[in-house]
Amino acid sequence: MKLLEEKILKDGKILNNDILKVDSFLNHQIDPVLIDSLAEDMLNFFKNQRIDKVLTIETSGIAVAYAVARIIKAPLVFAKKSKSATVGDDVFTAEIKSFTRNLVSKVTVSNKYLKEGENVLIVDDFLAEGNAGLGLLSICNQAKANVIGFATAIEKGFQGGRKKLEDNGVKVYSGAIIKAFENNKPVFEEQ
Amino acid sequence: MKLLEEKILKDGKILNNDILKVDSFLNHQIDPVLIDSLAEDMLNFFKNQRIDKVLTIETSGIAVAYAVARIIKAPLVFAKKSKSATVGDDVFTAEIKSFTRNLVSKVTVSNKYLKEGENVLIVDDFLAEGNAGLGLLSICNQAKANVIGFATAIEKGFQGGRKKLEDNGVKVYSGAIIKAFENNKPVFEEQ
Repeated sequence: MKLLEEKILKDGKILNNDILKVDSFLNHQIDPVLIDSLAEDMLNFFKNQRIDKVLTIETSGIAVAYAVARIIKAPLVFAKKSKSATVGDDVFTAEIKSFTRNLVSKVTVSNKYLKEGENVLIVDDFLAEGNAGLGLLSICNQAKANVIGFATAIEKGFQGGRKKLEDNGVKVYSGAIIKAFENNKPVFEEQ
Repeated sequence: MKLLEEKILKDGKILNNDILKVDSFLNHQIDPVLIDSLAEDMLNFFKNQRIDKVLTIETSGIAVAYAVARIIKAPLVFAKKSKSATVGDDVFTAEIKSFTRNLVSKVTVSNKYLKEGENVLIVDDFLAEGNAGLGLLSICNQAKANVIGFATAIEKGFQGGRKKLEDNGVKVYSGAIIKAFENNKPVFEEQ
């Protein structure tokens, strides 16, 4: 998505060679014109599929997932990062390692909000190693819901997340795919 | 807002006499048709004011704030709950006590995303004791931005938050005001 690539080139900051900081339009301040347009592009990619529910994970995925959910008038569910070790048996859970923060969070979704046979589109802000996507896929599998795809704003193509998801049968959409950082600038993969 | 009151009556659950659980449409699963309609109502209340920026706090405020921001094509900024005690001098900070969780979080906003003279609408999912609103007001004051109002989905009118905000000159909009819980049902204040 051209608009997103331009925005990354203009406003993204590269930290420590492998972390892309996009605080100015995606992760702290959010540009709703860009995100609405990204949401249209995501849905266009999955346009032949019925979507019953949009699933994301707090915090940075919520705005993008909301932008998608409102267009198709489908409920949005966000997985919660639980601080407590004790979770009841009325939730689906997964452990997700964050690439940027290097910590493992237990995330939960109430079994009231994901049901057997529902078609789910997973949405997140980043795809790096694929851990969030795999965790949310596991939660959908526990619910016996069907994952029709994973849609992300920015993919870091050199971190292997796409292959892990595709190996699990999940179709992947990325607004922009960064294949490398060169001379402190992102280089995009043509789509 | 009638639609929201009906939804609260139908799907809200009251826990321990003073916590209203609205997981099914606001806090875990989100109903985008309802939230888009609430956002229109919020903006209608502040319709004679220029809004440069929408400010909220992670996590539950983000979807509602996004719905508002996209209509007026204004950037949305969400205050981050920082885990670290060391924050640089490039951020505005406030300490906010959560009513439902009974813990104090330090929240931060980068000084890049709130500027002197900007008109800010603060949006959150709940207004109870007013602590989140006061914290975000303090952050706006540090930035010398103008708070044109505080808009919330659900106000618990018996917990004093509105008065604290109004005493600080902040105009308050609530989608639904609960004046009491009676026989395990919310009773709404007429607006």
